Amino acid sequence: MATSIKIALDAMGGDIGPEAVLPAAELVAKNTTDIHFLLYGDEAKILPILAKNRKLRAVSTVIHTEKFIGNDEKPSTALRNGKGSSMRLAIEAVRDGKADAVVSAGNTGALMAIAKIVLKTVPGIHRPAIASIFPGLKGQTIMLDLGANVLVDAENLAQFAVLGAVFAKAQKKIAVPSVGLLNVGTEDTKGPDHVKGAANILANVDFPGHYKGFVEGTDIMTGEVDVIVSDGYAGNIALKSIEGAGKMIATSFKNSLSSDPLALIGGLLSAFALKRFKNKVDPRLYNGGVFLGLNGICVKSHGGSDALGISSAIRLACNLAREGYIQTISEDIGHLMTQETLLAEGAYRD
Amino acid sequence: MATSIKIALDAMGGDIGPEAVLPAAELVAKNTTDIHFLLYGDEAKILPILAKNRKLRAVSTVIHTEKFIGNDEKPSTALRNGKGSSMRLAIEAVRDGKADAVVSAGNTGALMAIAKIVLKTVPGIHRPAIASIFPGLKGQTIMLDLGANVLVDAENLAQFAVLGAVFAKAQKKIAVPSVGLLNVGTEDTKGPDHVKGAANILANVDFPGHYKGFVEGTDIMTGEVDVIVSDGYAGNIALKSIEGAGKMIATSFKNSLSSDPLALIGGLLSAFALKRFKNKVDPRLYNGGVFLGLNGICVKSHGGSDALGISSAIRLACNLAREGYIQTISEDIGHLMTQETLLAEGAYRD
Repeated sequence: MATSIKIALDAMGGDIGPEAVLPAAELVAKNTTDIHFLLYGDEAKILPILAKNRKLRAVSTVIHTEKFIGNDEKPSTALRNGKGSSMRLAIEAVRDGKADAVVSAGNTGALMAIAKIVLKTVPGIHRPAIASIFPGLKGQTIMLDLGANVLVDAENLAQFAVLGAVFAKAQKKIAVPSVGLLNVGTEDTKGPDHVKGAANILANVDFPGHYKGFVEGTDIMTGEVDVIVSDGYAGNIALKSIEGAGKMIATSFKNSLSSDPLALIGGLLSAFALKRFKNKVDPRLYNGGVFLGLNGICVKSHGGSDALGISSAIRLACNLAREGYIQTISEDIGHLMTQETLLAEGAYRD
Repeated sequence: MATSIKIALDAMGGDIGPEAVLPAAELVAKNTTDIHFLLYGDEAKILPILAKNRKLRAVSTVIHTEKFIGNDEKPSTALRNGKGSSMRLAIEAVRDGKADAVVSAGNTGALMAIAKIVLKTVPGIHRPAIASIFPGLKGQTIMLDLGANVLVDAENLAQFAVLGAVFAKAQKKIAVPSVGLLNVGTEDTKGPDHVKGAANILANVDFPGHYKGFVEGTDIMTGEVDVIVSDGYAGNIALKSIEGAGKMIATSFKNSLSSDPLALIGGLLSAFALKRFKNKVDPRLYNGGVFLGLNGICVKSHGGSDALGISSAIRLACNLAREGYIQTISEDIGHLMTQETLLAEGAYRD
């Protein structure tokens, strides 16, 4: 048990709650041998579900608390009143070295606010961001921010570019990741001021990536750039738009096949190929947002995810814990911030 | 010819230019009998292409101009220097009654700026918006703004809700369309101030729709609401993200089938169903953004569209011209603005 990965799980988080979170952990426990879960939440709700999920029961410890943070709660309220809540206790487990990573499907704003206070940001970072991995035709793209920071300024976006580039270096094993800024067009004159300002910074500083200019929503799933940087408002809407489009397409496709017997036979013959296809594009398999810029691994699952979706977020946390990504990122960023005078005031205020 | 629909086409617009715009018009001319095109642009470029598109040649008039508006041009420059350009001449044809609608795949900002000056906005409307129709599982959703207004305030968004609702009434033949505001979550506390401000207005005024609250990116293609309102920044990024996801899924699917002989046979057996499916979700078939709030029909095609995509925009313009949508909208909005004291200052400043 000494070398196993320990995941602190906010069992009460998400739109569905323990009925999705615990079966998600069961899915992971079923084919992972070296894992232990710390389940934070209401025993009265957790234990009956745990009784039906035997693999999970064998590898988990329940830490009881009746307190949890609601989806409607403001981050400021969650910060003030959230002590002893399932979310906060799970985050504190990472700070205290009891867990290697925390996973929650709860209130994004509250999770970010509490994680920032408890885990603290890497020196020099103004705001942590949420990053996720998108499947693309030519390879994976890491996109951030996906909803942690609705309003940001140009300097925040430039910092996100650094966070994303360092993550991409580790995740994609490449020396100089290409970085694009999400905008409404690729022309210099387009877009809101904070995006144009970030372009000005990134074109004029050294950072651990190669700045490729503005990219559009159409570029998110091509894999043309390794990192796409956005504020959390546009990033969150892009992420969820893609998720919705995927669901719509999957349902329409199923309906087209089942409406025609010949097509149904064809569909069955294609079943293996279809499964490969589905595995490539099912958004639930790419669920999981990493908070970058904190001293610890904190992974956010979509609030509306089912067990399969949340299990992807847990798997992402396990991988990050195994690979030591966050430690590397923290060191690299701290190093960059102090040594390379990245985002030098002169460059930005010109 | 007296009752035919006359479309003024900016032949030079878009990333590809006349090589995409003219074949698009040919596609429409091939199965539309009562149409006439006014083609604005450089004869030296248009005539050789026209020679290869015989149906179009038979139903079009070329109006020569060497001037065109570049994709990088700022709207202000395009306004100052764009007189006599293909885009401006095409818009003026609508103002002067020579055409029933104008279609351009050119610079969105320039098109909006010139259309506003030439066609003028409906009294009471601060800013026109671009709307498009999205296919959804339960029905079509009209979304606006898709890129005309990067930065808006709460009152602009509330006006977009009115424009969208009136369009939906005409397009979907329903009495009271449901309207949602695009945001990063459905909770009241989430999102940027202009979105929260618009929610406050819409919840407190009478308008020709039923306000349903915040919706997320995932709701764009469900068809759950008839109208989704957004600023042009998030709306444009959502639109293009969906387009990119659709392309990625289509390519992955094709690759999955062709990688496996059994799957390929299956795919062929399913061909008819697949075609129906493709017809339902191909984003090119839903290409075409209508400028709402102007005294005339102006349809914008995506700049990157191919001939099939631009042909959808032309078809949308034809339909709108036939149905007289814009006239109805103009009248309804003018009526609303003056008579119902919609967006009364009291309601907004409370």
